[in-house]
Amino acid sequence: MAGSVLIVGAGAIGAFYGGVLARAGCDVSVVARSDYDAVARDGFRVASTIGDLSFRPRKVLRAAEGEFDIVFVALKLTRGVDRVAMIRPALGPGTAIVLVVNGIDVEQEVAEAFPGHELLSGVAYAAASREAPGHVRHHSQYTRLILGRYPSGASETADRLAELLKKGGSSCQVVEDIVGARWMKCAWNTVFNPISAIGGGLGSKDMLASGESVAFAHAAISEVCAVAKAAGHPLPEDTADKQIAGTQRMANHVSSMGQDWLAGRPMETEAILGNAVRIARRLQVPAPRLESLYALLLMAENRRRGPAEVA
Amino acid sequence: MAGSVLIVGAGAIGAFYGGVLARAGCDVSVVARSDYDAVARDGFRVASTIGDLSFRPRKVLRAAEGEFDIVFVALKLTRGVDRVAMIRPALGPGTAIVLVVNGIDVEQEVAEAFPGHELLSGVAYAAASREAPGHVRHHSQYTRLILGRYPSGASETADRLAELLKKGGSSCQVVEDIVGARWMKCAWNTVFNPISAIGGGLGSKDMLASGESVAFAHAAISEVCAVAKAAGHPLPEDTADKQIAGTQRMANHVSSMGQDWLAGRPMETEAILGNAVRIARRLQVPAPRLESLYALLLMAENRRRGPAEVA
Repeated sequence: MAGSVLIVGAGAIGAFYGGVLARAGCDVSVVARSDYDAVARDGFRVASTIGDLSFRPRKVLRAAEGEFDIVFVALKLTRGVDRVAMIRPALGPGTAIVLVVNGIDVEQEVAEAFPGHELLSGVAYAAASREAPGHVRHHSQYTRLILGRYPSGASETADRLAELLKKGGSSCQVVEDIVGARWMKCAWNTVFNPISAIGGGLGSKDMLASGESVAFAHAAISEVCAVAKAAGHPLPEDTADKQIAGTQRMANHVSSMGQDWLAGRPMETEAILGNAVRIARRLQVPAPRLESLYALLLMAENRRRGPAEVA
Repeated sequence: MAGSVLIVGAGAIGAFYGGVLARAGCDVSVVARSDYDAVARDGFRVASTIGDLSFRPRKVLRAAEGEFDIVFVALKLTRGVDRVAMIRPALGPGTAIVLVVNGIDVEQEVAEAFPGHELLSGVAYAAASREAPGHVRHHSQYTRLILGRYPSGASETADRLAELLKKGGSSCQVVEDIVGARWMKCAWNTVFNPISAIGGGLGSKDMLASGESVAFAHAAISEVCAVAKAAGHPLPEDTADKQIAGTQRMANHVSSMGQDWLAGRPMETEAILGNAVRIARRLQVPAPRLESLYALLLMAENRRRGPAEVA
């Protein structure tokens, strides 16, 4: 089967995997909000390191409707986004839901709302950016999507979707512990994204410019690892070392949250950091550095409301 | 005795206490650097809640020279300030040195450089700001200077200086544990000054706008208290509660370090925060929130060197 797919949240990642699935022969529709006009008129132009992935969706919708085999949700999880309401109108009896989003503990709400539907969760390592309405550039060599049934286990749907993604030119890995894969991504995201934003858009080199900041990042990543372990998803012992070393090898790249901060866009504060802090508290794992980052990130967001008065 | 006093570092606090001492009949000279021209020409104009404290110094110097009864050092302790070299040329056989500066562990270097001189350490709670070259406004109702012999003990010199300050209209309290008084001020300064600067100039209300930020500030103040206690200077049990409550009562005042950040001026990072972190480590007191603030503040300072490249 190729099947029908509705991409909900047609930003960079949604357009990229939509293009991959279209190239694999799927019948791809999209819900586009801010970019509706451009996409309805011209479709998606997707320039990728794996070739041109431009495609014209079967349907371009302002809101979900119909019945699809797969509802592929690639939304940024910022405050006030009601995923459940956005997904509901596109569900038929056998529709599977795929959440390709950032953060940890981001599935529960959807799982509870739609208990009769298979829920897959996905962690994307592809780096793509929206250059203009309907125009997306995928600029990393990697295309990797890690996919798995939520909360765990094998899934024929995941296997079939992975085959389609590979047919379309992406790499895709199906795992039985997708939550563990989320924690692995959080080992970087939960620490470096907030640091980057709190610092006003720090690049990876800026974040590791002193021994003090390297020690801090290492200790904060170790807190993420301790929480993941307590939650039943132990990460490799050398995770903090490897994340630091990998980051030191990067060009001075500004993280997605740092870029959101610089652009004045909403940030995925709760999905990426707040949820991790809440899990730490629930499991009584000390995470003072994550709590520090969370408090400071909330203050930075609050400051956006207006400058403080200088007395 | 009224005696001769050299104010080194004629910023807001130096000019204010210089004015108080001049009004008490002391023979006050100053070392003025950036404001030399204005002060040499017109003296200091000091508007205070305790009246006009304007005065014309006996001598206005670009660098210390001569012999004074008291060298009153009111410098900001930013990177690259060599206090020892600045003080040395003004010392005669019986000169006492008074350090009225922010931070913790800020006396050792001076004590070691001048073992033959009495060293007093002072913590000022007066709020004053430099409005223009040679023009200072003291705008708090309080004028309090806490003064004591370093590292501890009674001091006739401190008692005499306190009498002069009171005669000039300020309040002054002599204590035998001046390091404890420093820790008490650090219970606020070491936490809220860095938060304010890291947040890009946050006001006191901004820093306590959510339950998360209140909990963070409370926990960070408790870390300062734990370090102070381990260092032999226990603070009252309710210190964190009181600092939070007092800060919540403030207008949305931006801390001195936050104002320095906003103005692009150097900050007293090491005196106010770095030294506290180092003492915590030396005494093996966990201080992860202070370490977080320190790492993030260093990153913020580094960022000043230039914006990160957005890849």
